[in-house]
Amino acid sequence: MRFDLPPTVEDIRAAAGRIRGQAVRTPLLPVRLPDDSLAYVKAEVLQRTGSFKFRGAFNRLSLIPKAARPAGVVACSSGNHAQGVAEAARLLGMPATIVMPSDAPAVKVARTRQMGAAVVLYDRLTEDREAIAAAIAAETGATFVHPYNDAGVIAGQGTVGLEIAEDLEALGLAADAVVVCVSGGGLIAGVAAALETLSPATRVHAAEPVGFDDYGRSILAGERVTNERVSGSICDALMASSPGSIGWEIGRRRVTSGVTVSDAEALAAVAFAARHLRLVVEPGGAVALATLLTGRVETADRTVVAVLSGGNVDDAMLTKALAG
Amino acid sequence: MRFDLPPTVEDIRAAAGRIRGQAVRTPLLPVRLPDDSLAYVKAEVLQRTGSFKFRGAFNRLSLIPKAARPAGVVACSSGNHAQGVAEAARLLGMPATIVMPSDAPAVKVARTRQMGAAVVLYDRLTEDREAIAAAIAAETGATFVHPYNDAGVIAGQGTVGLEIAEDLEALGLAADAVVVCVSGGGLIAGVAAALETLSPATRVHAAEPVGFDDYGRSILAGERVTNERVSGSICDALMASSPGSIGWEIGRRRVTSGVTVSDAEALAAVAFAARHLRLVVEPGGAVALATLLTGRVETADRTVVAVLSGGNVDDAMLTKALAG
Repeated sequence: MRFDLPPTVEDIRAAAGRIRGQAVRTPLLPVRLPDDSLAYVKAEVLQRTGSFKFRGAFNRLSLIPKAARPAGVVACSSGNHAQGVAEAARLLGMPATIVMPSDAPAVKVARTRQMGAAVVLYDRLTEDREAIAAAIAAETGATFVHPYNDAGVIAGQGTVGLEIAEDLEALGLAADAVVVCVSGGGLIAGVAAALETLSPATRVHAAEPVGFDDYGRSILAGERVTNERVSGSICDALMASSPGSIGWEIGRRRVTSGVTVSDAEALAAVAFAARHLRLVVEPGGAVALATLLTGRVETADRTVVAVLSGGNVDDAMLTKALAG
Repeated sequence: MRFDLPPTVEDIRAAAGRIRGQAVRTPLLPVRLPDDSLAYVKAEVLQRTGSFKFRGAFNRLSLIPKAARPAGVVACSSGNHAQGVAEAARLLGMPATIVMPSDAPAVKVARTRQMGAAVVLYDRLTEDREAIAAAIAAETGATFVHPYNDAGVIAGQGTVGLEIAEDLEALGLAADAVVVCVSGGGLIAGVAAALETLSPATRVHAAEPVGFDDYGRSILAGERVTNERVSGSICDALMASSPGSIGWEIGRRRVTSGVTVSDAEALAAVAFAARHLRLVVEPGGAVALATLLTGRVETADRTVVAVLSGGNVDDAMLTKALAG
C-alpha cells in the first residue's frame, strides 16, 4: 500500500487481519448516562499498551519489508504512540527508539522503556521532535513511524471503526453518531474511512480539549488550521498542533463537527468512567465521553458511541479526578 | 429446573441463552504479570451492575412464574447481589426489596436504590438477615432469591465458566487453572460445573481473604466449616460464613484448593488492575488476581485465569489502593 494516500476500507480490513490475535478486540460497552439515556463506549483503554495506538503501530510495522527490519524504527510521541510502537517492535523483533517530550507523564515514559525501547527526551517548547527523529533515522537507517500522518497507521486505527460497526450490527443497531478523541486525527480519519462504507449515515464528531481544537476549527474553515498553544492541557495525548494532511483528506469530507471539552469536564469524565464503567481512562481519552456527559452531543433516543481512546494515567491524576 | 439441586452444564447453557442481550459478554483479557509471565483475567467488573451477580440474578428471576412476578422479589446482600437483583427486577418489571448490612459500602447501597429497589438495613453483628428477608417474603408473597444457595443463581454464575472455556478455545488454549473469588461459593460452583464438562483437566482454586477462608478449609476438611469472624475485612463482598450447601456438592469434588489473601495484598491487586489493566476492581473482586501477583498460584508456562468478580468500590478505597 501507499503510505502517503488516505487508506481505503480494504486497507482497514487488511489491517484487521494483521492485528488479529495481537490486538485486543475491545468491547463496546453500554453506559447509562446521568440523564438516563443509553450510549455506548468503545473501551480502547483495554487495548494492548492501554490505547488504540497499538493497532496502527502493529499494522504499520508489519508492513516494513523484512530487509529493513533489523535497522528498527523511530517514532515521536507524548506516550501512547510510543508504547504502541515499542510493543509492536518488541513483538516483531525490531529495535525501537522513541522521541518523547520531557513533560510526558512519567508512567508513559517508564512503560515505553519497559517494552524495550530506547527513549530520547526533548523540550516541547524549544526543540523540534520530528527533526530529532529524522536525524536518528538518517544515522541508523531506522524506519520513521509517524503517529498519525501515515496511511498504514491510519488504517490500523480504522479497525476501531470496523469493530464499532460490526458490534452495533450484531445488536441490530447503527450509530447515529460516533465521537472520537482527536489529536493529529489519525484515529478519527481511520474511523471515518471505515464508517463511510460500513455505516454511511453515521455522523463523526471530533472531541478536543479547549485551546487545542485545531480539528474542529479546521472543519469550520474548510482547511487545516493550527493551534496557538503547544502545551498546558491535562489531555497530554491531544496536543498535536494541526490535523495530519493524509487523514485530513478523509476527515474534511466525513467529520461533521468538532466539540470542545475543558480540563474540568475531562476530569469529571475520568471520574465517571471509574465509578460507572469501572474503566481507568486518561483525561485525553475521556474527552469524547465528556461531550456526552455535558450534553454537547445529544444522546436521547439516538445510538451514540464515544471512543475511550487511552488509559495511561498517573496515579496522581486519577486520584485528582476521583477527588473532584 | 429444581432450585435445590446442583445445576448441570445444560442448566448453564440455558442460562446463557436467557441472559444473552441483557448481560455483557465480558472480555477475557491477557495480562503480563510482574514476573513477566502471561495470564488472563475475566473482566466481570464490566458486567452490568459491575459484578457477575447480575448473571445469576437475571437467570433466577427469569425463572419466576408469571403469576408470582407481581409480588416481587426479596434478597439479602452486602451489595453486589443487591444490585444484580435490583437491576434484573427492574428489567423484568418486578418490585424488589433488598436487605443490606448497615456497614455495606455507601456506593453499593446508593446504586441499589438507584435501580429502584427498596433497601432495608440490618446490623451484621446482632440481626439475622435471612430471618428479616423471610418475614418480608411471608408478608408480601415476594420470591426470596438467595445470593448463592440456589441452583438458578449458580447456573447464571456458571456462564462465566462457559465463556472462559469458549474464549480460550478460540485462542487454541485450555486453562490449566482458574482462580475464583469466593464468598458463599455460588460463582465457583457454577464455574466448576461448566468446566467439569467443557475443560475437565482445569483445576479450580478458591481465592479468599485471610480470616474468611471457610471454603478452602472446607476443601481440606472434606465438609463445610464456618468462619469465626463475620466482619472486619476490606473484602466486603467475601464474608459469607460457610459454603452454600447446593454449590458445595459441585465444589467438594471439583475445587482443588483454597488460597488466602491479606487485605494489603488485595489492595495491591486493586492498584495493579487500575495501573496495568485499566480496570477498577473492588478489593473482594481482586483476591483471585492477588493469588497470581503473590505467586501463590503458579503462572509460568501455564494458562491461568483469574476472575475479576466485581468493581463496586468507594472512591476512598480506590484512592487508598493507589496510594499504597
